[in-house]
Amino acid sequence: MDQLTLTNPVFATYAIAAAIMVLKGVAMSWLTVVRLVTENAGLRSPEDLRKTPFNPNPDPAQLGPNDRVDRIRRIQQNDLESLPYFFMAGLLYVTTMPPLWLAQVLFYGFVVTRLAHFVAYYTAQDHEIRAALWTPGSLVILYLGGASLVAAF
Amino acid sequence: MDQLTLTNPVFATYAIAAAIMVLKGVAMSWLTVVRLVTENAGLRSPEDLRKTPFNPNPDPAQLGPNDRVDRIRRIQQNDLESLPYFFMAGLLYVTTMPPLWLAQVLFYGFVVTRLAHFVAYYTAQDHEIRAALWTPGSLVILYLGGASLVAAF
Amino acid sequence: MDQLTLTNPVFATYAIAAAIMVLKGVAMSWLTVVRLVTENAGLRSPEDLRKTPFNPNPDPAQLGPNDRVDRIRRIQQNDLESLPYFFMAGLLYVTTMPPLWLAQVLFYGFVVTRLAHFVAYYTAQDHEIRAALWTPGSLVILYLGGASLVAAF
Repeated sequence: MDQLTLTNPVFATYAIAAAIMVLKGVAMSWLTVVRLVTENAGLRSPEDLRKTPFNPNPDPAQLGPNDRVDRIRRIQQNDLESLPYFFMAGLLYVTTMPPLWLAQVLFYGFVVTRLAHFVAYYTAQDHEIRAALWTPGSLVILYLGGASLVAAF
Repeated sequence: MDQLTLTNPVFATYAIAAAIMVLKGVAMSWLTVVRLVTENAGLRSPEDLRKTPFNPNPDPAQLGPNDRVDRIRRIQQNDLESLPYFFMAGLLYVTTMPPLWLAQVLFYGFVVTRLAHFVAYYTAQDHEIRAALWTPGSLVILYLGGASLVAAF
Repeated sequence: MDQLTLTNPVFATYAIAAAIMVLKGVAMSWLTVVRLVTENAGLRSPEDLRKTPFNPNPDPAQLGPNDRVDRIRRIQQNDLESLPYFFMAGLLYVTTMPPLWLAQVLFYGFVVTRLAHFVAYYTAQDHEIRAALWTPGSLVILYLGGASLVAAF
């Protein structure tokens, strides 16, 4: 009984969801790089103010806050507070051998609402919209973790 | 030889410990939400100062520091610096086929000291107490990682 | 076909790489402790200013920024933005049954460039050098995630 192989449809579902979230999470680092370059601001290390080919005109203001950069960092931090728990809870949940349809609802539901949460945060929607799109993902993780805990006892 | 299934007592021990830590970690997000609401402060995004049903009287001070909110964020950050490494090192350790009693001591010891660390941090105990409760969990991760590294070579 | 056991050379390669990164990541916490002690600064919680055996002469300045401590925290945060994604993407990639040589190039390449990135950040090299050493690791994660996604469909 190979639970953690791609021949298990539940694991394949998990793999698709987790891989998408990995790509999404890493994309935040690259989006931060893009914003650092386009804003020419939002740096954080003193050595970044050295005169180099990529920073020909250093200015101490480059180390100050910049909302267009900091917004991406907040989104990235939100991912860090969520995705590692999803990865772990999801993997454990696969070993409980859930029905495929339920795994699909939970894993893909997580992915869809997290991507929608990103769009809402990125475009600075009202807090209520952001919260409404954050909540389902968090509840999915709690369900995955709780169901795994019950099954493991 | 199914190592990563709940029929393996060592994996079941890991699953219980990891699931509890997932639930604990995600609970920090919800505790932050509770504190944001009860303090009516500690917000971080400019758009959170818009007048909405949940924030009928916006005030720029809501974006300033608030120790009751920031304390939970520090606890959450401490989790992020620890739990993903525990998840990974623990999973690798399961594949080294350790004796069950040792796995139980390490995994449950991690859980118990992390929960005690949370209580100490939450109630603002002296730094020494917090440090004393943080140390065992970190040593457990180092042992799990080191033992896995040796076994994998 | 036991994919996720140490008898699978690809998994053993992953286990070695992941265990090294766990030890590296956790070492950042201990390095922070060392710097907190040697700098006698960089504290973050109000209760850390209480007069205790380890802080006999509290001073509010101990809660202010300190670049020697904050540098380690930035390095640690950089790990948190990278390692959990590597752990997840790498595990998924193992289940795609890649050729061993390719897994070795990707997993060990990640480890080597991340360790070099640490040295560059720790010694405050120019931003360009740090960026050049960060990029390969991030591309490895994207490749691992992308290849896993394709294989899982």
